[in-house]
Amino acid sequence: MTGGRLKIGVFDSGFGGLTVLRALLPLLPQADFLYLGDTARLPYGSKSRATIVRYALSSTRFLLDQGADFLVIACNTATALALTEIHESTPVPVLGVIETGANEARGSSKTGDILVIGTDATIGSHAYAAACAERGLRTLEKACPLLVPLVEEGWVDHPVTAEVVRIYLTELLQQAQEEELDPDTLVLGCTHYPLLRPMMEAALSPAIRVIDSAQATANQAARMLGAHVLPGGVRTFCECRFFATDSVAKFQNLGARFLGSAIDQVELVDLGG
Amino acid sequence: MTGGRLKIGVFDSGFGGLTVLRALLPLLPQADFLYLGDTARLPYGSKSRATIVRYALSSTRFLLDQGADFLVIACNTATALALTEIHESTPVPVLGVIETGANEARGSSKTGDILVIGTDATIGSHAYAAACAERGLRTLEKACPLLVPLVEEGWVDHPVTAEVVRIYLTELLQQAQEEELDPDTLVLGCTHYPLLRPMMEAALSPAIRVIDSAQATANQAARMLGAHVLPGGVRTFCECRFFATDSVAKFQNLGARFLGSAIDQVELVDLGG
Repeated sequence: MTGGRLKIGVFDSGFGGLTVLRALLPLLPQADFLYLGDTARLPYGSKSRATIVRYALSSTRFLLDQGADFLVIACNTATALALTEIHESTPVPVLGVIETGANEARGSSKTGDILVIGTDATIGSHAYAAACAERGLRTLEKACPLLVPLVEEGWVDHPVTAEVVRIYLTELLQQAQEEELDPDTLVLGCTHYPLLRPMMEAALSPAIRVIDSAQATANQAARMLGAHVLPGGVRTFCECRFFATDSVAKFQNLGARFLGSAIDQVELVDLGG
Repeated sequence: MTGGRLKIGVFDSGFGGLTVLRALLPLLPQADFLYLGDTARLPYGSKSRATIVRYALSSTRFLLDQGADFLVIACNTATALALTEIHESTPVPVLGVIETGANEARGSSKTGDILVIGTDATIGSHAYAAACAERGLRTLEKACPLLVPLVEEGWVDHPVTAEVVRIYLTELLQQAQEEELDPDTLVLGCTHYPLLRPMMEAALSPAIRVIDSAQATANQAARMLGAHVLPGGVRTFCECRFFATDSVAKFQNLGARFLGSAIDQVELVDLGG
C-alpha cells in the first residue's frame, strides 16, 4: 500500500477484464488500480490448462511486483484453470470471477437450474458447474467460441451477431429441455459477453435473468474490502495504471470499448512469451 | 539432409499452414516434412509486428535445430511481418506465402487489379500490396478477422459464415468500384481461407478468379526444389513429424480438418512462451 491507499491488481488475458475494472471503479474510490492485459498471448480460452497456468502465474507475479495488495482475476479462463495455482503462489488475497458468478446465481435462482456460457477452455474445465454444485445448483454449460471475435470485430449491434447469439442460446435451451431442467438464470461466464447482454436478453424469455460475472465480481470485491457503494454514476479519482504485453495502441483503441472511457496511457510489458 | 532426403520445415502459428503442407505432399514425395504449429501463442494475426517477429524467429529456429534444409513460412501473418528477419537469421532457403501468392496473381490477372483478403496483421502490413506493386499490379486489401474463428468453430458450410463472407466481399467490391478498379483476381491471403473457397466463389462473379496462396506456395516450392508434379491424388510416402506448442489432442482434432487426413502423432514443444 502506498500512502495508505489500497492497490488492486486486475488481470485478464486481454480487454474483457476491463468490464470488471469498469464495475470496480465506482465501488472502490479509495483504491488505486493496476490492470494487466496479457495481450501478446491472448486468447487463453482456446489453450490447454498447462499453458494457461504458466501464463497466469507470470502475469500475476508481475502485478505483485508492481505492489498489488489484492488480486482480481478478471478472466474466466484463468480463474477456471489456474485459480488454485495463483492462490498457492500469492501472499495477497485473490478473487476470481467464477465463485462470484456462482454466488450471484445462488442468490438469484428460484428453480436451482443455471445456464452458463463461456469460452472453450472455461466450459471444458467445468469450473462453473463445480462452483454451482457446491451451492446446491444444477448447471448446463455451453461454449460459445464465436462471441469473443464478434465483440472484438465491433459487431455488438450487428444482425450476424444477433443470429449467432440466437443459435447458441436456442441450442442451449433445447438441451436444457431434453435434460428436463427448468433454468431461470444465465451466467455470462466471459468478460466479453456483457457487451452482448441486450442481444442475449432479447433472445431469452424474460423469465431468465442474466447475471454478469464482471458486475458480480466487482460487488463482491467491494464487500470484501469493506467499501460502501457510491450513488450510481459518480466518477472517482482512482489512479489506474494499464499494462499490456502487446501493442499499446491496440489496447487503447479496443480497451476503450470495454472500459467505456478513454485510456490515456498504456505501458508495454515483456513477460518473456 | 538425412540419407539424402530433403527435410522441409513448414511453420505456421497454428493449423492453417496444414493446407500448405497438404498441397506440398503430393508435389514433393522425395522429401520429409517437419510441421510446427505455434499453437500456444496463436493467433498471430491480431498482434503487433515486434511480437510476431519474436515468435516467428523462435519457431523457425526450432525447425532448423530439428534439421530443416528448407523453410516454408506457411503463415501469411509471419510472412508479412517477419520474413526479412527470418531470412537474415537463417542459413537455409526460405519461402513465404506472400511472394508466391503475388506471383500467381500476376500470372492470372488480365486487368492488373487484384483483391486480397487476410487477417488484421497481414492486411495492416500491406505486404501483399507491396509484393503486387513490384509486379505491376494494383491492389485493394481487406481484413476479414471473423473468418478464422468461423473456420475453427467448424462452421465451413454454415449460413452465418456464408453471410459474413458475403458482407466482407460486398464491402470489398463496393470499395473497388469507388476506387474505379476492375478486379479479376481475389487472393486468399490466409491459410484458413481455402476451406471457405466454395462460399467465396458463390459470392463472387465468375469473372473473378480465386487464388489460394497455399496451393501457389506448394507449386513454387516444388519448382524451386526441381520436383516433378505427380498426377493428382497420388499418395506419397513422405515422413511427416508434427510439433505443437499447445495441446497435442487439439492439434490432432482440428489439424485433421485442415490436412484432410488423420494426424497420428504430435510432439509437444516448449518455446518458452
